[in-house]
Amino acid sequence: MDVQFINPVLQSVNEVLLTMAKLEVKPGQARTKRHDEAVSCKSITGLMGMASKKAKASIALTFTEPVILEIANNMLPESKHAIDGIVIDLVGELANMVMGGAKRYLEEEGYSFNLALPTIIMGSEYLIAHRTNAPIIMVPFKTRTGEFFIELSYEHIK
Amino acid sequence: MDVQFINPVLQSVNEVLLTMAKLEVKPGQARTKRHDEAVSCKSITGLMGMASKKAKASIALTFTEPVILEIANNMLPESKHAIDGIVIDLVGELANMVMGGAKRYLEEEGYSFNLALPTIIMGSEYLIAHRTNAPIIMVPFKTRTGEFFIELSYEHIK
Repeated sequence: MDVQFINPVLQSVNEVLLTMAKLEVKPGQARTKRHDEAVSCKSITGLMGMASKKAKASIALTFTEPVILEIANNMLPESKHAIDGIVIDLVGELANMVMGGAKRYLEEEGYSFNLALPTIIMGSEYLIAHRTNAPIIMVPFKTRTGEFFIELSYEHIK
Repeated sequence: MDVQFINPVLQSVNEVLLTMAKLEVKPGQARTKRHDEAVSCKSITGLMGMASKKAKASIALTFTEPVILEIANNMLPESKHAIDGIVIDLVGELANMVMGGAKRYLEEEGYSFNLALPTIIMGSEYLIAHRTNAPIIMVPFKTRTGEFFIELSYEHIK
């Protein structure tokens, strides 16, 4: 995993949540994700693929229900007490904005990517795996109501 | 949704399963996916993003446990009775192969895409949503042990 890929993504998470949700978040210690780590409480994940001729990547942004409701209630005019269609769309939009921001930073450093369509997963118990031989980096973020995670996988094309 | 996008993907699903798993499968009737349709039994999904300057897409290939074990047992030297790390990798590889094949057909028709890294989701109850305003097309396939589904979303960039 290229640190030049991680930092722009983390910076973009910070900026999107601060600008859109007025939420100040700090990345915790990055670590390698184990293959059997699963989501074990009601959560929602925004998945985004990135692709270019030289590299491919996937990121997963996973929020527990209290954290995404905190974000939703800071961003939306109506109050949300459970994940519904509007919150699902919001997670897709957050994934879009985070990776759109990361793409701009990466372009400044000479990387060029196109973004795929975001996919959103919701459930109470599910496992996310990334098909890559490179290590999956997992970074936790803290908010007032709990933690959320970003997983990053990145691969150069040989 | 562009039918010129759907058909190469369906053709590639057929070919990959026939060549790799000796499994003859037939696509059923394509339909629009409702937003609240969720996986409700032990299943595994291979997700793949595709991106270019002109369009973006995401596909989800969802197998129930009996169907993926049938495929795994046709492809792998050892016998599988449950989804494990090897079967998870296999689903990522199937998503890779299906979209690699579709990419070749799409290139013949003038589309040019790069593939992101596949992501795999496993669980007993989860919902997949695609962040797009275009309709999500869902196509069922039948095998001897059950059904599997492919979901396709495709969007031109304005």
